[in-house]
This record gives sequence, structure tokens and C-alpha cells, in this order.
Amino acid sequence: MPTGTHPPLQRDASQPLAGQLAERYAQRIRERLLLPGARLPSVRDCARQHGVSPHTVVAAYDQLQAAGLLEARRQRGFFVRETRPTQASARSAQPATQPRQAPVDATALIRGMFEADAARAPGLGTLPADWLDPTLLQSALRRLSSDETVQVSYGDPSGDERLRIALAQRLADLGIHAGPAQVLTTNGATHALDLLIRTQLQPGDAVLVDDPGWSVLFARLTQAGIRLLPVPRGAQGPDLGVLAALAAQHAPRAYLTVSVLHNPTGHSLDLATAHRLLRLADEHDLLIVEDDSYGFLAPEHLPRLAALDGLRRVVYVGGFSKVLTPAWRVGYLAAAPEKLAVLTDTKLLDGLTSSPVLERAVALCLEQGRLRRHAQRLRERLTHARQRVAALAARQGFQWAAPPDGLFGWLDVGVDTERLAQPLLDAGWLTAPGSLFSATRCPGPLMRVNMATSQDPAFWRQLRACVDDIRGRSATP
Amino acid sequence: MPTGTHPPLQRDASQPLAGQLAERYAQRIRERLLLPGARLPSVRDCARQHGVSPHTVVAAYDQLQAAGLLEARRQRGFFVRETRPTQASARSAQPATQPRQAPVDATALIRGMFEADAARAPGLGTLPADWLDPTLLQSALRRLSSDETVQVSYGDPSGDERLRIALAQRLADLGIHAGPAQVLTTNGATHALDLLIRTQLQPGDAVLVDDPGWSVLFARLTQAGIRLLPVPRGAQGPDLGVLAALAAQHAPRAYLTVSVLHNPTGHSLDLATAHRLLRLADEHDLLIVEDDSYGFLAPEHLPRLAALDGLRRVVYVGGFSKVLTPAWRVGYLAAAPEKLAVLTDTKLLDGLTSSPVLERAVALCLEQGRLRRHAQRLRERLTHARQRVAALAARQGFQWAAPPDGLFGWLDVGVDTERLAQPLLDAGWLTAPGSLFSATRCPGPLMRVNMATSQDPAFWRQLRACVDDIRGRSATP
Repeated sequence: MPTGTHPPLQRDASQPLAGQLAERYAQRIRERLLLPGARLPSVRDCARQHGVSPHTVVAAYDQLQAAGLLEARRQRGFFVRETRPTQASARSAQPATQPRQAPVDATALIRGMFEADAARAPGLGTLPADWLDPTLLQSALRRLSSDETVQVSYGDPSGDERLRIALAQRLADLGIHAGPAQVLTTNGATHALDLLIRTQLQPGDAVLVDDPGWSVLFARLTQAGIRLLPVPRGAQGPDLGVLAALAAQHAPRAYLTVSVLHNPTGHSLDLATAHRLLRLADEHDLLIVEDDSYGFLAPEHLPRLAALDGLRRVVYVGGFSKVLTPAWRVGYLAAAPEKLAVLTDTKLLDGLTSSPVLERAVALCLEQGRLRRHAQRLRERLTHARQRVAALAARQGFQWAAPPDGLFGWLDVGVDTERLAQPLLDAGWLTAPGSLFSATRCPGPLMRVNMATSQDPAFWRQLRACVDDIRGRSATP
Repeated sequence: MPTGTHPPLQRDASQPLAGQLAERYAQRIRERLLLPGARLPSVRDCARQHGVSPHTVVAAYDQLQAAGLLEARRQRGFFVRETRPTQASARSAQPATQPRQAPVDATALIRGMFEADAARAPGLGTLPADWLDPTLLQSALRRLSSDETVQVSYGDPSGDERLRIALAQRLADLGIHAGPAQVLTTNGATHALDLLIRTQLQPGDAVLVDDPGWSVLFARLTQAGIRLLPVPRGAQGPDLGVLAALAAQHAPRAYLTVSVLHNPTGHSLDLATAHRLLRLADEHDLLIVEDDSYGFLAPEHLPRLAALDGLRRVVYVGGFSKVLTPAWRVGYLAAAPEKLAVLTDTKLLDGLTSSPVLERAVALCLEQGRLRRHAQRLRERLTHARQRVAALAARQGFQWAAPPDGLFGWLDVGVDTERLAQPLLDAGWLTAPGSLFSATRCPGPLMRVNMATSQDPAFWRQLRACVDDIRGRSATP
């Protein structure tokens, strides 16, 4: 609903909403109602004011930026540009009928993930809320609410001991032998990665990363002054030839990777590649950070590097956002004792402890075996979802880069998926173009598809139409 | 209770437990049962094995370190030294009958705070658990446990909106006018300070800090490569003459301070000093970070810099560990919009979101007005506690550096409190010597006394005895 004094945008107009919104701002800037240096409302506030989705606002701001009317200051906000654009470039802020390069801003899209309507978000990175088990969460919290000891203490900087004991058991199920003393809890897996970046890496270091991979990790590494060395990720694991060559040439400090149900491809490392990878790591003295965020959605027998290596040079990172709930922000890492001490001290200095209440709640879910049964049900449901999505994609003539597994499929649509994201956003579909997962932000014909949130045939029809539209235009002389 | 195969230490022996423990390890090292490079058990594990308090272990390891038998590797763990000490120096690891310099390790003591028995910890930095209100915590969590929306989402990277609305109201009560959009939630106040250090400061920057002040902050700043410029903290606030001189000489980027119920002195900034401080900040273009962690324990009318400045150059930091519970790890900051954007992005990259469950729980406590009433009761109870502690201290002839206020008193005992900490630890009392709060780790005759946990007359008798003991020895020719 439009609110306040803004005249509503016209939903039935031939001009897309994003274009109407862009034109409205362009006019105010031309008329100097918005002066150079003025800050535009946040994407969320603007969306609320005009009664449109945040994605429409992102698209509108992007058009204004392309027209030279706005600048994104380090992607932290949008400001009217100091130098007034010429009338001609201002006009180009009017609705672009030609598709443009790079219409999607990564930070904005990541933020968009937190407010997306899952039913309209085939690009979502998590299971939608209605796949989770609220009863499991409720009963754990309710049991805890009367535990006075846990409720009133900082807890242990290493993490709740009962959780660490339960996690050691989980790790043992994966063949990773670590005592509770080798486990450090964190505020989600992302915090674990952050602690590793802060303690194990230094500005100027080079690190090997999966390409494609997770954009938040790339952004965090770049922010820390780390050079990214992308290693192509195939169906069996990283391209070891490229990895060896990069290691020899750049002497990287570490390799950060997702072994099981890799995001975005869904691939899992095979045993032979894991073994050869660890030999290369020995040869080049690489620290390996193994992010197992999606691990609960895979069968337990899939090999983890930490299991082969025995947590010698591998640090294992896990979390519960994908299987239990993202709302509790509980993650952890398991590492060799000499690494753990500095990690614990750094956690202490950056926030003292992580919440003992939520950690105990996770422990209760693990101890009861209920989380394991819930994960089993999720895996079965995902299997059905993948079959359905495969059929929907096939019906529209789409191909996968590899057979989907776990939560994601890596779809090859044959045209630049970044160009495709804009018209799909305008039609209300949040997608995740391949460039978001590229360490070099390189556009391409791939996109990540969430098996749980892409079950609406309307999405696939729309995707087909948008792809054909772009193909048709490219074919026009 | 001693556990495992370790023969129990003798509690009634003339030799203190720490000395017995140190001698036991010294013997194993001399006999090469512990080889050079071997890692000693963690303080906690060792305490469990020998049935002693962690503080006794810290003291024992310290004696071994002083004797050259152990080395602390960057204070992250204790290892048998590579070079074998001479027999003579090994013997000196036997119980020191002379007090030594610097017997207390800061990191170990900070960690000790998390496992201290509050009844034996006059040095504690928080209210003891039995001063908190478990019913308030329970009812909030119970109400929440059935809120499915909050339970299954990442939440908003800026923080739960209902909490931010409630916090804006709390800020308004303090005269700080900030909309919910100017509030960013964090994993406790320490995390807020961490985000500010990461986004507003750079390695090599100089910053002004209160001296005395909070050691975790000093450690975090030092870890970030920041130079500390200590400003003496008096009863009305910082010494503005020193502050101006340091600002002129070193061009610091920021001043980090606690305005109200300053830790460790209990002092609060007065209005005139606040006004002059902000003029100096304008003159030298200082960012001011105002940590109001203890604010709920003070009357609301005490001036905050953020109220005078209108969040122009002041960033306000608050939390709930001191008044509600440390177990929820909810803190926040309020800042000008242009600072907020980069802070939010950094929070996003370092952990995505903070827990929407616990944030909503705090919102419920604030909205109901129950937290305000609880804080009012705490203030009344603290007033009584201060009166009682003042009487106990006076009975033993002790003087305060200034009249105690809020949670802390800053006691002047006339002898080096770092030397005093060791015999007090041996007697089972965890104290907080002034050197822990000194930006330069400078020893002195002051110590922080927690008004809630120093109500046992036995502590004051022991303190008197230990002080007299040190005085007596110093007087011996």
C-alpha cells in the first residue's frame, strides 16, 4: 500500500513500476527538489512509502545510478550526485526499454534475501520458514525458559558445554573425532568464518576460494584486504590442476571451501578428490576452512575434509540456520587446540560470549535426536521437491549444469542471468543470477535455483518468456 | 573435589594450594615427565583435575612462568619452555614466600570472571545472578516460544523492529532523540564496540580512552592496532586539560568513554564537563563513542553526551547484560544515518543478523515497563548495598577514592593491589586490582569493589589482614 503523500505508482501502466519510480526521482533531481549530496531513503523505507517491493526500489535506484543521477557511496546508501548530469543523461534515467548490464546490486540483493517472500523467491539461500519445525523450536525454548542457571549467566566463552558435547557427537557421526574442548560456539556459521578471517589471515594474504561460491564470504574477505584466488568448482570438487598452479604461483595462506552440497552448485566433494586435495594442502601448507552449513541436508556418509585430515590443518565450520532455524544464530567451529585458543580470545574480545540460552536450546534439539529425525524428513521432502522442479524445468526446456542435489540446482538458461534478473524482479520473482556467486562478479548463463521455493509453474513460464525475450532481442539485427 | 589419578592437594598444609600445585608441575618438568614444548592443561581443566579454583591454577602457572619453567604463548596457553631451566631457577618455582610483581594475568582473570562464584568475587563486573529477575526472563521467553514468525526467520540485519521502536523510546527518556531507523542491534554492547572499532578506526589511529577504563576494550583496541591515549578520569569526567593537550599533539580519531556510572570508578559526567567536552570534540573533530552499559543502574536524569550532541558526532552504545541478563547477548548502538549504513553492512558480513528471538524478548521486557520497574528496584537495593559496604569498609579503616555510586566503588587501600590480588585469590577472594583498568597496566593502590558482591564481613577482614601483611613486610628492613 502506498502511504503518506506520495501519489501511487500505476500498477497497470505499460511502464514497469521500477521505471515509474526512477522517473519520479529523476524529475525531482532535475527540478532540484532533491539537491546534490542529498541522501535517498533506504530501499526499505522507499518501498514502504511507495507500496512496492524492495526489489523494485533496487531496480529504480540502479537505473538512476546508471543515468548518472545517483551514486552509491561504497554501496552503503544512495546520494544525489554532486555534479549535475546533462539533460541528455538525465533523460536516459527514463525507463530503459533495452536491458542493461549489471542491473542487480549484490549488497542490496543480499539484504533483499532477508525480506523476501519465499513463495516468490526461487533465488532464496535457505529453506523457507514453512519447512522448519516450529514445534521443535518451541518445546526447546519452553523447557529452557525455567532454567534459571542458563538464563542469568554470560556462559562460557567457549560455548555451552552441553552443546559442545552434543556437537562432538554430531562430528563423530561424520567421522570427525574432536572432543568438546575442540569445539567453539559462535553467533552462526558466518561469525565462525569471521573469526577465522580475523585470526588466521592478514591483509594482503591470498586465499583460494570456490568459484562459484558464496558472495557474503567474498565480500567479507575483500573487506579484510584478502586477495581471492578463484578455483573452478566441478562436480567432484575443486579443479585440482588450477588449485595447484595457483598455490605454486601465489603461495596462498588458505583454501575456503564447502565440501558437501556446495552453494550454489549443490555438488559434493568425492573421496578421491578430497584425498588429493589434502595432499596438495600439505605440499603448500594450506589452512583449510571447511564450511559445512548445508551438511544436515546431506546423507552423513559424504566425506568431509575434516574427517580425513583429523582437524590437523582443516578447521570445520557448521551451523543450524539451514536445518533448524536461522533465528537462533548458533554456529560453531572445530579446530586443533592451538588454533582454538586464539579464536576463543578473539571471540571474547569481539562480544564476550555467545548466548548460552540459545546454545542450550540447540543442545536440547540435538540430544533428543529430534533434530536428526527432522533433518531426515527434510531430506525426503527435498528429494520430492527436486523431482518436481526437474519436471517443471524440463517442461520449459531448461537444462541443469549438473543434476540438482540438496537445496540447490545450478541452472543453465543460455542467456546472461544478470540481464534476466531485472525483468524477473519486475514480475515479482527474486532470482539469484550466477554473477552473485562469481568471485570476479562475472556474468554468465547460470543461476542458482532453490528446490523448495521454485515449485510454482508460473515461475518457470515467466523464466521461459524472459529468456526468449532476451534471445529474441539479441537476434534482432 | 579432586578427580582422576591426581593425588589430592593438602588443604590444611602450611603451603598455599597454588604453591603446592606449582611445585607438583615443577617436579614433573624437572623429571622430564613433561617435555619442553608440552602444553599444560587449560586453567579450567587443571582446576577440575585438582579440585581447586581456576584462580589457584592461574596463580600456580604464574609462579611456574616466573621461575622460567613455563611460557605463556601470547597468553593463549601455557607450554613447558624449550630451554631447560637451571636447577636453581627451577627451585625458585617453589612457593614464593615473597610477594611478586604482576602475579595476575589479565586475560586469565577476565576469563575467570565468567566462572567466578559471585559470593566470593568482590571484583565481579556485573550484578550477581541472584539480583536479576528470572520471572521476567522466563515470561518473555515463554510468550515468545509460540511466536512462529520470529522463531523461523533471520530477522532484519538492522535488528528486530519492535525492539528498535522500544529502544527509541528508552533513548527519548534519556533525552536522546533518535528514530528506530537510527538504532542497530548487536550481540551485546561489546559487539557494538567491536563494530565501531572495525568501521570507524584504522590500524595506526590514536584514540582517547578513559583511564582507568575497561580492560577488554583496551585489549580489543590494541589488537586492532590502535594507539591508546589515556585521559585521567575524575569525579566530574575526563581531565579536559589532558584531553585537549593529547588531542592537539596526536590528532586522535575518537574518544571512547563511559559517561554514566563509569567502570571502574562509578563516577558520572557532569553537565558542564559534558558541554566543554563536546566543544573540544568539535574543535578536534573527534568521534565520540559513549558506552552506557551501566546506564540502567543510574537515575535517568544524568546527562548523556548523545543527548547534548544529538547523535551528530556521538555514537551511543547500550546493552542489557547489567540489568536484565548477560545470557541473551543483546546490545545496540544509535548513530547518525551515514555511520549506520556501514555499521549495518559490517554486521551483515560478520554474522548476518543478531538473534531476532532474543531481541523480541528484550522488546517485550521494555514494552511492558517491567524492565524499568526492575531497574528501579535494583537501584534501591544497590543504595542499601552501598551503605552496608561503606560501613564494612569503614570498620576496617579503608578509604574510597570517591564516594561509591551505582555498582562500583573505587577503593584506595594504600598498597599495590596487584600484589594484594594473589594472597586474596589464595584465600578464595577474586578481586579486581586497579592495574586491570589501567590503559598502561600500571599497578597502584586502587581496586574496583562490586557493591553487590562485597557484603561479607569476612572479605573485609581478609583484605585488612593482607594489606597489613604487605605493609608489615615492606616495613621490615
